[in-house]
Amino acid sequence: MGRKNVKVGYIRYNSDMIDKNTIPLANHPTVFVIFGITGDLASRKLLPALLALFVKKLLPTRFAIVGFSRRSFSREEFRDLIRENIKIKQGQFKEEDVKHFLDHMTYEQGHFDFVPAYTRLAETLRFIDERWGQCSNKLFHLSVPPDLYQGILTNLAGSNLTLPCDDRTGWTRVLIEKPFGNDIVTARSLDRLLGKLFKEEQIFRIDHYLAKEALQNILAFRFDNPIFEPMWSREFIDKVHIKLFEKDGIENRGAFYDQIGALKDVGQNHILQMLALIAMGKPRSVHALDIRRERLIVLKALKNIDQHDLSKNVVRGQYNGYSSESGVSTQSQTETYFRVETRINLSHWKGVPFFLESGKHLAESRTEIDIYFKKGRRLTMINGSDSDKFQDQNILTFRIQPDEGIRIKFFVKTPGYGFATEARTLKFKYGDVPSFNDIPNDYEKLIHDAFIGDQTLFASTEEIMASWEFVTPILENWKVLPLKIYEQGTREVE
Amino acid sequence: MGRKNVKVGYIRYNSDMIDKNTIPLANHPTVFVIFGITGDLASRKLLPALLALFVKKLLPTRFAIVGFSRRSFSREEFRDLIRENIKIKQGQFKEEDVKHFLDHMTYEQGHFDFVPAYTRLAETLRFIDERWGQCSNKLFHLSVPPDLYQGILTNLAGSNLTLPCDDRTGWTRVLIEKPFGNDIVTARSLDRLLGKLFKEEQIFRIDHYLAKEALQNILAFRFDNPIFEPMWSREFIDKVHIKLFEKDGIENRGAFYDQIGALKDVGQNHILQMLALIAMGKPRSVHALDIRRERLIVLKALKNIDQHDLSKNVVRGQYNGYSSESGVSTQSQTETYFRVETRINLSHWKGVPFFLESGKHLAESRTEIDIYFKKGRRLTMINGSDSDKFQDQNILTFRIQPDEGIRIKFFVKTPGYGFATEARTLKFKYGDVPSFNDIPNDYEKLIHDAFIGDQTLFASTEEIMASWEFVTPILENWKVLPLKIYEQGTREVE
Repeated sequence: MGRKNVKVGYIRYNSDMIDKNTIPLANHPTVFVIFGITGDLASRKLLPALLALFVKKLLPTRFAIVGFSRRSFSREEFRDLIRENIKIKQGQFKEEDVKHFLDHMTYEQGHFDFVPAYTRLAETLRFIDERWGQCSNKLFHLSVPPDLYQGILTNLAGSNLTLPCDDRTGWTRVLIEKPFGNDIVTARSLDRLLGKLFKEEQIFRIDHYLAKEALQNILAFRFDNPIFEPMWSREFIDKVHIKLFEKDGIENRGAFYDQIGALKDVGQNHILQMLALIAMGKPRSVHALDIRRERLIVLKALKNIDQHDLSKNVVRGQYNGYSSESGVSTQSQTETYFRVETRINLSHWKGVPFFLESGKHLAESRTEIDIYFKKGRRLTMINGSDSDKFQDQNILTFRIQPDEGIRIKFFVKTPGYGFATEARTLKFKYGDVPSFNDIPNDYEKLIHDAFIGDQTLFASTEEIMASWEFVTPILENWKVLPLKIYEQGTREVE
Repeated sequence: MGRKNVKVGYIRYNSDMIDKNTIPLANHPTVFVIFGITGDLASRKLLPALLALFVKKLLPTRFAIVGFSRRSFSREEFRDLIRENIKIKQGQFKEEDVKHFLDHMTYEQGHFDFVPAYTRLAETLRFIDERWGQCSNKLFHLSVPPDLYQGILTNLAGSNLTLPCDDRTGWTRVLIEKPFGNDIVTARSLDRLLGKLFKEEQIFRIDHYLAKEALQNILAFRFDNPIFEPMWSREFIDKVHIKLFEKDGIENRGAFYDQIGALKDVGQNHILQMLALIAMGKPRSVHALDIRRERLIVLKALKNIDQHDLSKNVVRGQYNGYSSESGVSTQSQTETYFRVETRINLSHWKGVPFFLESGKHLAESRTEIDIYFKKGRRLTMINGSDSDKFQDQNILTFRIQPDEGIRIKFFVKTPGYGFATEARTLKFKYGDVPSFNDIPNDYEKLIHDAFIGDQTLFASTEEIMASWEFVTPILENWKVLPLKIYEQGTREVE
């Protein structure tokens, strides 16, 4: 096939999947700038991931982290804070590694809307480049509430930090967290701003779900197993049910969550990305361009749910007690649960409904995708509970979390006399394979891929806008739907 | 669908699978006549199975076992012998159950070729019927070497025992053990004799492999799981490999085995029946007639291997040391191993080779069927051993014994950075399901089905003759092939 294994750091890559231009840059000096370094996301996700990559020697030999935040610290105070944050959250690092890691960090105090602070940041970055004697890569990460994006990006541009310092060597990339806009209007405006400042290949929009192993594995399962390819068709698939169930409520995120609601929090992004992976066609390669192209075809073909179909195809709910949560309006109509039935306007998915469902304070935390197969002509009677509505259907389940794995519900002859069957499971569990346990977390993979310039695990601007196009008509008519109040710990909302 | 569960004894049946006429007879008084009751098969298989059925109350309320053999016993001696045989082989029965079971047994001494002995047997049976006040069913089991079949059957007919005593109530059936003939000529002659004395529905030809759970389950897997139906085609299947490997040698069967060889011992029957289950089309129902019709279509379509193809498609071997086994000719050319590659002359199996392989004194005891799927266009590189010839193929395995179950070798994304895959397994193991462990053995099911008149687990005369048609050209040219001597405990003969 002409492909080769390419060694980058410790990892063997399929050469098809890497943008050829990034390979020589993989060990190029790089500065990682974190806006909001003292915040929750930085200490919970980003810094532990960077530290883990550092320990595994997967960062460039020359790298620096520049933290940017409003609070004033001495160099020592900053180091203590970071050490404390990392220590508390991650018991698994050695003191010595943390110490060496901290040697790569610098702090830059400044208000996000204060222009001179960006001039100082530019000076700091220039100083680092001068010390290294070359133009380094710059990776900007916005670990801040989304309403600050516009200000930060504009100020970055104003101080010329969005431009590479050199055409041939260093690059500039920006990592953006979700939510990408608060609605289609703000999303478009953010998109326009980013489009003005960066090329698409510089923009890494994080949907950390895409980096989940069991989600990435959907591509491997579907496209590298010829045994399963023929079943993947409207001829055999009855329906698809994508579930993102949470046992917890909104915790201390009331003020934020009440402005967002479940559909924007996890529907517009995580759940639609899962749908895209299930329904996409076989990409020409594992290159990001090919994979994102196929995901986009599906997202663009989602059947819009208009006002007329709303009550038939959508349920919205709120858990009992939500409106008395801290930070939540007592009159809140924000949904903490939704179930949406949609279709894909592609001939090969004709007639197959996709159910998208998520909620907080449900009976358990579980993210999974169930693919129900049509009933065929059965030879046998089934031994089993008649109360199971799907007792005679094959179901393929991708369990995303917890207990990652794949299960196929199938029918086995009940041992003994006669010939009846019962439902049993063909299983593969990540937990059963030792090497599948100690694996990089989502953020390690995302940062790593941003370093090497692989955008597979990031949503393209077109994907994000197509997702907004789908949820917007629902959101616009939200209020028409009755809000069902459900008990906490419920198994089924209706 | 209009089918109903039918309760017979303790078991629920799908009403489609039972010949309607047999249901009212299921509890009809029945006499089970065993020729060769003191032999190995009777004490190892038949009597424990009958006792197990008795304990589970799956025998008719009125039943009797009449043992027939050459040796002379008093009633007490006979009971002691049977008790001892059952006890030694089967520790799991209660003394009380054994005692009650023995009360149903009668012994009839006689030489198999001595006509007056059959007259006495007829009297004994008549006496039992008179005691019960009705014409009972008669089930004759031939637990004797096959060269005695002709004599016993002829004498049975001579004393009118092959005829039911009454047209409407009792039936007469005969259970025949393999080998069914020693070659196609003797098989045809036995078949003609049976055909003269019995109708096909009275003849139960035992191939105990057909009663193995994991083998029966092939039908359930293939035809009650629409998810797997589309993959079952020459478009996706690369080849099929049926293995019946034994770690043991011929043990104390030298004199018998040396006349037979591996191909007749397990190839003509067990292995071809496994092939039929893998390749057969979907039957109209689980009724024996429908299933046997589909199996037959495959067996009749087997591509004959002529002298020209022999050396290309067949390997025959003998383990080192075989010719010095007790009872074996020192010049023996009998094969203890064979591998045959064949095809099926049906358009939907065009181009798919079937490998049939069996041997004694191999590295392990294992019976399984591997279905290799064609390679497709891969997206990813595979992490794994380059020495594995089939490293990039999906393989579906039916493990018949030991560790019954189903495995699908498939490719999973190797967790971590980048996007490569590795081979892992989707598994279902009988041993993991408690209710799948304590299950009736092959002979319990066979005797049970003979009682209720279900012939699904028995080979039809056409199936047996088609199997002989396939192996005969190989056997006729056997001597042309070099006999490969292989080491005991070998993994691969060549």
